[in-house]
Amino acid sequence: MDPSQVNIPPMKDLTTENITENVIQINSLCEDARMKYVLERLVHHLHDFALETRLSSNEWITGLNFLKEVGQISSDVRQEFILLSDVLGLSILVDSIDHPKPKGSTEGTVLGPFHTHEAEEMTQGDLMSNDTKGEPLLVVCTLKDMNGKPIQDVKIDIWETDSSGHYDVQHPDRDGPDGRCIMRSDSNGVFWFKAITPVPYPIPHDGPVGQLLKKLRRHPYRPAHMHFMFEKLGYDHLITYGLSSCLCYFIWTETDHALLSALYIRNDPYETSDAVFGVKDSLVVDVGKASAEVSRKYGVPEGHAILTYDFVLMTIDETSYLRDQKSREAMDNLGYKVKIVDGLPIPDVD
Amino acid sequence: MDPSQVNIPPMKDLTTENITENVIQINSLCEDARMKYVLERLVHHLHDFALETRLSSNEWITGLNFLKEVGQISSDVRQEFILLSDVLGLSILVDSIDHPKPKGSTEGTVLGPFHTHEAEEMTQGDLMSNDTKGEPLLVVCTLKDMNGKPIQDVKIDIWETDSSGHYDVQHPDRDGPDGRCIMRSDSNGVFWFKAITPVPYPIPHDGPVGQLLKKLRRHPYRPAHMHFMFEKLGYDHLITYGLSSCLCYFIWTETDHALLSALYIRNDPYETSDAVFGVKDSLVVDVGKASAEVSRKYGVPEGHAILTYDFVLMTIDETSYLRDQKSREAMDNLGYKVKIVDGLPIPDVD
Repeated sequence: MDPSQVNIPPMKDLTTENITENVIQINSLCEDARMKYVLERLVHHLHDFALETRLSSNEWITGLNFLKEVGQISSDVRQEFILLSDVLGLSILVDSIDHPKPKGSTEGTVLGPFHTHEAEEMTQGDLMSNDTKGEPLLVVCTLKDMNGKPIQDVKIDIWETDSSGHYDVQHPDRDGPDGRCIMRSDSNGVFWFKAITPVPYPIPHDGPVGQLLKKLRRHPYRPAHMHFMFEKLGYDHLITYGLSSCLCYFIWTETDHALLSALYIRNDPYETSDAVFGVKDSLVVDVGKASAEVSRKYGVPEGHAILTYDFVLMTIDETSYLRDQKSREAMDNLGYKVKIVDGLPIPDVD
Repeated sequence: MDPSQVNIPPMKDLTTENITENVIQINSLCEDARMKYVLERLVHHLHDFALETRLSSNEWITGLNFLKEVGQISSDVRQEFILLSDVLGLSILVDSIDHPKPKGSTEGTVLGPFHTHEAEEMTQGDLMSNDTKGEPLLVVCTLKDMNGKPIQDVKIDIWETDSSGHYDVQHPDRDGPDGRCIMRSDSNGVFWFKAITPVPYPIPHDGPVGQLLKKLRRHPYRPAHMHFMFEKLGYDHLITYGLSSCLCYFIWTETDHALLSALYIRNDPYETSDAVFGVKDSLVVDVGKASAEVSRKYGVPEGHAILTYDFVLMTIDETSYLRDQKSREAMDNLGYKVKIVDGLPIPDVD
């Protein structure tokens, strides 16, 4: 930026009392109203954090060095900043803000780092895990809209670990995809398949984020769960992202019509202490036993482990209406008049 | 952390309304009371930032990718996170918190990235810049304590750019140190030397921080200034740090008895828009002209450019008393009962 091209508002004499307004003033040259607002809030909170903690120079450089390490361990296959965001509860918060869910609609959760684009399309009843050490599990689900109407032909991406708590991509010598599949819901909104009962596993904790967890005396475990990603034109989209691992694939794809969720197995030892805060009561399920009728219908022995769930998807319109409403409420509380531009709130200064 | 060794408080069902308290609760296992407090405030502000901006998933990943880039461009000789902290006003704020200055005491400022440990010790009146294109400048300063008593034998580190706005270390073909020296105050607290009139220059702006400044329509310039670092047992110490540059030396040395300051030349085009917010009114000085008396005393032609300044240093005790007082005030405003441990405040929950 050529300084002669910009009319910078002069700063006042800087003190701890006015540095914040001075920084915001100089940033207010930004022509992107949304970015200007985000930066204003960022600078406010960053400064208030330092002021309220009386942050020392030593703590400040320790923090910056930590962030540097987080950046430096990151790579195409390891996203330590996403991991940091996850363990601080920011990821699940942003998901909740971006994908608000009314009562009755299936809640979202964090994606985790282990989604790939390799999964094979399978047909109803297929076996998606070849791990013979796992406990066989029958999964039978339905997909409905907010009015209870079945949604057919939804593309469903499903993935889980093997019985040792590792995803296929974490095994360097793997032959191909395993523990993952793509299915499509039928005319009744039903999809069903055979899998294994999920087990808990730790998030990657050999880097700076793992060290932070250790200092906080927190464990790195996620409770047992199975991932689902739903995709259909017109239904709430989700921008998928991945946690990181030196062994995992990182994905960052804008799947315009996918909704992400996961089911958690009840009574897991980490059910109430998920390292990345992904568990929601409505997503916790019991593993049941197949009745005689289920046994006949799905071709499994009587008493076979079974997981059932009825997913309820919102349309894009329903989601964005709710998101706008909650944005207006939140900014109202801040005392801002608000306008929504491209789905995001900015203060209305006109 | 072995999960069986830790008694984790169970989390409630997570919503946008309670995620913050849940994260703080799980972090409260931390045994370091100060770290626990800093994390509590960090999580509060991080979450409030997301809630108040209604941060979108897209913005979230853009931010995390930006931080990753900041980490990845960093090296031993380039500290992009410090640069980021500088342009957001955080560095100068932390300095103000850690080194509070009452009226009458010389204010601190940011160090910048260009201090080295190469400077040669010089005697009164020596020439510290060999740049023949620079405008010669006589510098005459005094050093006193808060009671107006001269402080002798203070070690003073001084550095400035050449006339092109570059420090010696920015020239790959340099022979040795130039534009820098170490002096000692005499029994009257006086030190004086010959230099060149400082000129403005840009901070390193070829990385992610430079791109941020550009998006904010901010320029990367610092107004003309000369750096001073004072060191004497018993006087306010400062932990020095450096901005970054691909060309500069990075220093991070705990100089236990050094105070850092800088003098800014009045009417610089960037005086009121310093990219790193270092300028304070009390540090802005006029370049004057040598009188006949000065000319005789210091051996320069009459009318020669001259810069004079009277520095006032606080003792360690004076500084820490003031710091504790301001910490108590700030935490009082938050409604916390406070105790000071190792010079840093934590809530007193006993």
